[in-house]
Amino acid sequence: MLKNITAEQVAQTITPRAPKSYKCNYGRVLLVGGNEQFGGAIIMAAEACLNTGAGLITVATNSINNAALHTRIPEAMFIDYHAQELLVPAIKAADIVVIGPGLGTTPFALELVKTCLKLLVEQQTCIIDASALTISAENPALINDCKAQIILTPHQMEWQRLSGVKIAAQTDLQNSTQLAKLSDHATLVLKSERTKVYDQSPTVWQNPLGNPGMATGGMGDTLTGIIAGIVAQFGTTTNTVNAAVYLHSFTGDQIAQQDYVVLPAKLSHLLPQVIQQFSKQNA
Amino acid sequence: MLKNITAEQVAQTITPRAPKSYKCNYGRVLLVGGNEQFGGAIIMAAEACLNTGAGLITVATNSINNAALHTRIPEAMFIDYHAQELLVPAIKAADIVVIGPGLGTTPFALELVKTCLKLLVEQQTCIIDASALTISAENPALINDCKAQIILTPHQMEWQRLSGVKIAAQTDLQNSTQLAKLSDHATLVLKSERTKVYDQSPTVWQNPLGNPGMATGGMGDTLTGIIAGIVAQFGTTTNTVNAAVYLHSFTGDQIAQQDYVVLPAKLSHLLPQVIQQFSKQNA
Amino acid sequence: MLKNITAEQVAQTITPRAPKSYKCNYGRVLLVGGNEQFGGAIIMAAEACLNTGAGLITVATNSINNAALHTRIPEAMFIDYHAQELLVPAIKAADIVVIGPGLGTTPFALELVKTCLKLLVEQQTCIIDASALTISAENPALINDCKAQIILTPHQMEWQRLSGVKIAAQTDLQNSTQLAKLSDHATLVLKSERTKVYDQSPTVWQNPLGNPGMATGGMGDTLTGIIAGIVAQFGTTTNTVNAAVYLHSFTGDQIAQQDYVVLPAKLSHLLPQVIQQFSKQNA
Amino acid sequence: MLKNITAEQVAQTITPRAPKSYKCNYGRVLLVGGNEQFGGAIIMAAEACLNTGAGLITVATNSINNAALHTRIPEAMFIDYHAQELLVPAIKAADIVVIGPGLGTTPFALELVKTCLKLLVEQQTCIIDASALTISAENPALINDCKAQIILTPHQMEWQRLSGVKIAAQTDLQNSTQLAKLSDHATLVLKSERTKVYDQSPTVWQNPLGNPGMATGGMGDTLTGIIAGIVAQFGTTTNTVNAAVYLHSFTGDQIAQQDYVVLPAKLSHLLPQVIQQFSKQNA
Repeated sequence: MLKNITAEQVAQTITPRAPKSYKCNYGRVLLVGGNEQFGGAIIMAAEACLNTGAGLITVATNSINNAALHTRIPEAMFIDYHAQELLVPAIKAADIVVIGPGLGTTPFALELVKTCLKLLVEQQTCIIDASALTISAENPALINDCKAQIILTPHQMEWQRLSGVKIAAQTDLQNSTQLAKLSDHATLVLKSERTKVYDQSPTVWQNPLGNPGMATGGMGDTLTGIIAGIVAQFGTTTNTVNAAVYLHSFTGDQIAQQDYVVLPAKLSHLLPQVIQQFSKQNA
Repeated sequence: MLKNITAEQVAQTITPRAPKSYKCNYGRVLLVGGNEQFGGAIIMAAEACLNTGAGLITVATNSINNAALHTRIPEAMFIDYHAQELLVPAIKAADIVVIGPGLGTTPFALELVKTCLKLLVEQQTCIIDASALTISAENPALINDCKAQIILTPHQMEWQRLSGVKIAAQTDLQNSTQLAKLSDHATLVLKSERTKVYDQSPTVWQNPLGNPGMATGGMGDTLTGIIAGIVAQFGTTTNTVNAAVYLHSFTGDQIAQQDYVVLPAKLSHLLPQVIQQFSKQNA
Repeated sequence: MLKNITAEQVAQTITPRAPKSYKCNYGRVLLVGGNEQFGGAIIMAAEACLNTGAGLITVATNSINNAALHTRIPEAMFIDYHAQELLVPAIKAADIVVIGPGLGTTPFALELVKTCLKLLVEQQTCIIDASALTISAENPALINDCKAQIILTPHQMEWQRLSGVKIAAQTDLQNSTQLAKLSDHATLVLKSERTKVYDQSPTVWQNPLGNPGMATGGMGDTLTGIIAGIVAQFGTTTNTVNAAVYLHSFTGDQIAQQDYVVLPAKLSHLLPQVIQQFSKQNA
Repeated sequence: MLKNITAEQVAQTITPRAPKSYKCNYGRVLLVGGNEQFGGAIIMAAEACLNTGAGLITVATNSINNAALHTRIPEAMFIDYHAQELLVPAIKAADIVVIGPGLGTTPFALELVKTCLKLLVEQQTCIIDASALTISAENPALINDCKAQIILTPHQMEWQRLSGVKIAAQTDLQNSTQLAKLSDHATLVLKSERTKVYDQSPTVWQNPLGNPGMATGGMGDTLTGIIAGIVAQFGTTTNTVNAAVYLHSFTGDQIAQQDYVVLPAKLSHLLPQVIQQFSKQNA
């Protein structure tokens, strides 16, 4: 059954913070990605995650990206992703691990995906995005064996690679069936101009918002960061994933009233206000 | 025949985006330039291109410029321009290649210009700017042999070098004649305080806008980036080149109402709003 | 006796500047911290300190952080914290030394803490924060022997490590007693959702402001920077420390009216206006 | 005779740009400074110069400062100041050379000052600031032999070192006399809370504006950049130097209406608007 995500759902999910609370209450997020060429992708994901309100953010990336990361978001901690002795404890300590933005598909990238997916346990959530989806498509056991809660964020071509179902044949039923085969504890965010969210139930959620000004590089990385930030704070459920998808497009629509192209960083900077508006509907 | 570019022309060119569309629909732009000294030039060109709405942007530059590039525009992908194995596929994959801003005129720069101009094919567009024009002036076969659609963006002294016609003798007729000699599929954007656009027809288009506050370093790189962004989205035609020239000056004029000097980055940041205004005249 | 910090106290502390005055009148602050991973912490502390109005700011940090530091705040001077020949004179020349944000707890970090705490003299102030508190907990003589005025800024768990008193047992009386044991010339800023300030008197000051949107990474570094900036300008007293704590939360509350999460850099950028408002109440 | 600089003088100096003009008409400025520790100083000077409207800006500095420079102002070109083969032609090509901000006083810094001052010719202007003043104080022949027009920008202690006159004895008559001894073609900008400008005439000009919120690190570098930008555009005269001094304080006073501390970068970003206001009084 196909349902639209609604503003009411989002408002119910985005609760005001408890007066007595600490940054640890809002999740530790580890983002792994950004090689020598694609550093911007992991920075944009982290920037979105930060502006969503995640408590503590660490970025494991190529060291070439350190200066840009710390300049754009000094709030994020940095790990050189070659440093196993730092990366492994960071994976274990995280509530949420994002892997993929700007990661590339080299053998080293494959090792990183393996390290993350194998170390994670049931209480953790893993968001698999971009290059990590391509890698997973060639190594299907990786997702199947992963114990963490899984959120997959492919666009339609990435989903074709992952599921084996061609874009034209990607019906809701097919998508649900294939998702269940990949993992019985995964959520699928299938990105298109009307993104859909599939969990292991018969209900499929559709995003009613969004605009073509958002068709620009980095917009997917930004969505990934928002999902990470929202599930870090409000738990990993279909509702929270839906809320993240909705907030991303809602904010993009606000910007598109004035701007022809919706730039990712601008979207991220508007998030704190947009999320506060939804939060106050609960007050 | 000399005609003014008009706001109506621009509004007809800048059409609203189709609801169902993807970043790939808005062009892959590769910008090649920025040596150890002039990294800012290619960054400003890329920043302008991004704010114009191009779908995917890659910058091939000296690795010293990576941090500044990713800090200013994380949306752009990066290639070390010494890495042939990355550069060649990027050239082949691009819809639009910009070559020249901050490139310098070393033997290595010459090699880069050769690589780009020789690899490009008819379906692609090459914007030749700044140092690449100087290099082309000394290697005229490069432009003549290039199969891609060509856009040249010299100021008057660069055009003198390229065409052999002294500034005082640069009449419309002379310019058209020389352009046809250089290439039968090139468009000339001859920059001055009233920039003119020449295609292979007898009509010459003149920019009616602009102001002397725009006489500052980086303004040419910004125009080049805008041209790249506009033709990436709306195709390479005289109309789209005209629209880019017009939008650059229109935006500069907006800023000059308040600012004595019109800084390139400020101009770029205003582009999404200005382009949206023109786009909405089509709605 | 527990008292609330009041707006009146703050306004009396934040006096307008004398017409004839120089940057040296507003304090030399040295901030030591920021290793390869946690560079953002010392940058955020410095950014807060700068926006508070400190006269001259130097950051001693890992050289990997230089570019991000100079990009975000070119007003700060930089020292590679491995360069003893630069660091020692900088410590001696400083009015205020902040040590700890993003410092880590390696043997090298321990050496840095020792160097600072041993070199400082009575006329100087040392703000011990974050990693430097953890290091001090394992080397209690360091604080006890330090001759400078001391400000400790632990959160409750750091205070547990430092004082040996478990969080549940951290009563005002216990805290005052333990503080006196650690040093007879230290002030304690015990951070929680209602931060308290202890000096060597029976009065305990409580911060009446703040909001849970401030529960995010970097907020503590920002508070530390504000304390440094305020004591650099107005002297090291209970009143000035109170004012810094109050201003941090007051500014955070302003941002939280619109934003769900209160980002440290945004808070810092609002400080000059907020401080001016309090200053003008004295005019 | 002591006279106040007036708004009318400034308005007469800051003329609107001619419609047909090019970036080369607005001066080539080379700024030399910024060692490993003090990179921010030369960046702030360049940022002020850029926002004032100078046509072309090159910064010769330590290569560690490249990323921060290009991130903050991509409009500036970069030279590693160790590269003699780049630096010497840049000095020769410049209309204005600024030397000193963040330069330090090492033997290498001395060599740089010597190189600049010896190469410059009558048609050029050299602004000697900060470390370069300290170096010149120990090498008085440097200034005396320099053929370019000279602008000195010491604060009172730097002037004491340069002139040998103690601060308490720095009367207008003494200052004029000492200036004439140093060079018969130098202008002195003696910085204090009421900055004064001395040329080789009996008239001394005093800045009537400014506020103590401007007593912060980097404010002097910013003034230097503004002087460079103004003389680059409007020629090196007492009037133009006066205008630069006035505009610096006028802009700082605007910011101080809201902000307790006036941060250099904020001041620079407001310059284009302030200068446009003065320019329009001529229209």
